[in-house]
Amino acid sequence: MSATRPPAPELQVQRWFNAAVPVTLQGLRGKVVVLHAFQMLCPGCVAHSIPQARKMHELAKGSDLVTLGLHTVFEHHTAMTPVSLEAFLHEYQIKFPVGVDQPGDGHPIPKTMAAYGMRGTPTTVVIDREGRVAQHSFGAADDLALGLFLGQLLKA
Amino acid sequence: MSATRPPAPELQVQRWFNAAVPVTLQGLRGKVVVLHAFQMLCPGCVAHSIPQARKMHELAKGSDLVTLGLHTVFEHHTAMTPVSLEAFLHEYQIKFPVGVDQPGDGHPIPKTMAAYGMRGTPTTVVIDREGRVAQHSFGAADDLALGLFLGQLLKA
Amino acid sequence: MSATRPPAPELQVQRWFNAAVPVTLQGLRGKVVVLHAFQMLCPGCVAHSIPQARKMHELAKGSDLVTLGLHTVFEHHTAMTPVSLEAFLHEYQIKFPVGVDQPGDGHPIPKTMAAYGMRGTPTTVVIDREGRVAQHSFGAADDLALGLFLGQLLKA
Amino acid sequence: MSATRPPAPELQVQRWFNAAVPVTLQGLRGKVVVLHAFQMLCPGCVAHSIPQARKMHELAKGSDLVTLGLHTVFEHHTAMTPVSLEAFLHEYQIKFPVGVDQPGDGHPIPKTMAAYGMRGTPTTVVIDREGRVAQHSFGAADDLALGLFLGQLLKA
Repeated sequence: MSATRPPAPELQVQRWFNAAVPVTLQGLRGKVVVLHAFQMLCPGCVAHSIPQARKMHELAKGSDLVTLGLHTVFEHHTAMTPVSLEAFLHEYQIKFPVGVDQPGDGHPIPKTMAAYGMRGTPTTVVIDREGRVAQHSFGAADDLALGLFLGQLLKA
Repeated sequence: MSATRPPAPELQVQRWFNAAVPVTLQGLRGKVVVLHAFQMLCPGCVAHSIPQARKMHELAKGSDLVTLGLHTVFEHHTAMTPVSLEAFLHEYQIKFPVGVDQPGDGHPIPKTMAAYGMRGTPTTVVIDREGRVAQHSFGAADDLALGLFLGQLLKA
Repeated sequence: MSATRPPAPELQVQRWFNAAVPVTLQGLRGKVVVLHAFQMLCPGCVAHSIPQARKMHELAKGSDLVTLGLHTVFEHHTAMTPVSLEAFLHEYQIKFPVGVDQPGDGHPIPKTMAAYGMRGTPTTVVIDREGRVAQHSFGAADDLALGLFLGQLLKA
Repeated sequence: MSATRPPAPELQVQRWFNAAVPVTLQGLRGKVVVLHAFQMLCPGCVAHSIPQARKMHELAKGSDLVTLGLHTVFEHHTAMTPVSLEAFLHEYQIKFPVGVDQPGDGHPIPKTMAAYGMRGTPTTVVIDREGRVAQHSFGAADDLALGLFLGQLLKA
């Protein structure tokens, strides 16, 4: 079944927070990666997916499950600069790596967001150990359903 | 690691709801079973573990994950009879099998509850494919953590 | 405006809990009364209106605002007897007076529920200082809206 | 009792959103005013007090109750500029007037925040019809308690 999973495009990130060196999917090959795409002023992200990602990061410590954030600003660009994001990460106590998606060349959708064909925020992308997209969902993901999916993927 | 898991005592049930024939752990060997022990008048059960079990039952359809309820009445016995439980199951739209734990002989703790050493309600017991207790937790179980655990057990 | 408020029918109660003597609306004339009609196995009541009534009772201590419960069983009668209700009140830590609505003569709707024309549970009825129905709402009542209404009624 | 209420200091605002002309407490004399002091990156404000203020604004339409927001930035100043606030107000669908508190002269606490002696965000200040502080609370205010207080104040 996994043969039909498309390869996950490499991240195109302008700047990382909470990471000593830039994070790449290539470097995470062999791990299961959950990519949480969000915008700091997106109400659904703040209410649901940010707390979910934070909990996932805590639960996954010491395991092969890696939690990444991706700040995919596609609207209100001047309102959600890296300076504002940095304060947001501090206030919301986000400790996992968060990358700022590369701005698009001449259009509002940033590059990684475009490469994945994301429809908005929040979007959750699960990448398997072989670097393929195992799940791509737009909107709030249910904790129990996501946990079941990730648990099975970890043991697949 | 699973070698250290204790065998799960067989269920001692007075009456089943939502089951055409009595359910036994023996008969479920080969499946992963989640046993939700609750009391219909336990606020933490009603607010958290009943909705969790209901969602789990929906998510697990067609998989090897089986959701069971166990009504382990250890207080207010006359208030939580099978007649009241039946109405409760209807009102809370519970579709998975629910067993009424056998009353204790001369003491308030019912038999299955005692055999498992449960400390109260809600209690969640996860039983692996070999019929051993893989997890036993008292109190509200977190959706994401439980999902991750169950997902891994399904693929173990 | 209050001239158009209909008089509140007197309560017809079989048995009171949390009250040394039977409670009557006549005896509460001069107070603002909030009557919370519920069934112990009604999910919306348990999740929303019971906690709201409990909080209201706490907030209103020492004021002219009186919180009353009314157990208006109109379905599953054998499942929600006073014996079961007593355990429910204990488990949900309900300290305000709760009356058991008088069973209907030959039909399932109990007498006070019928006299008020309640459509189901939860129903919240606000009775003004003159014993008239100031508000009658079916379903979950919003805390802020209810508070604003009651506050104004207290000072009217 | 109201004789002991201190006068509410006039608002010192750098810029208003959702207001055609600057709002002053002087101009609102005769109304009951609820002043919601917040920061757009304060998690407790976003989760609780912003939704509460939005609901209050809806409920109070056509009444003498006025809902005002005050953006009292006392930390992460470069992250919460008016440009970012404007996008926040749009995303969180805030329609009531929001003022940006005047920056402090040489210290991080803005001027209105200092004049009221606010301890942080969220802070809710209720101002009576005579322009006096009737309630000042730090942290999340309970909907029912706040509603009861405001309702009584409206009719006092």
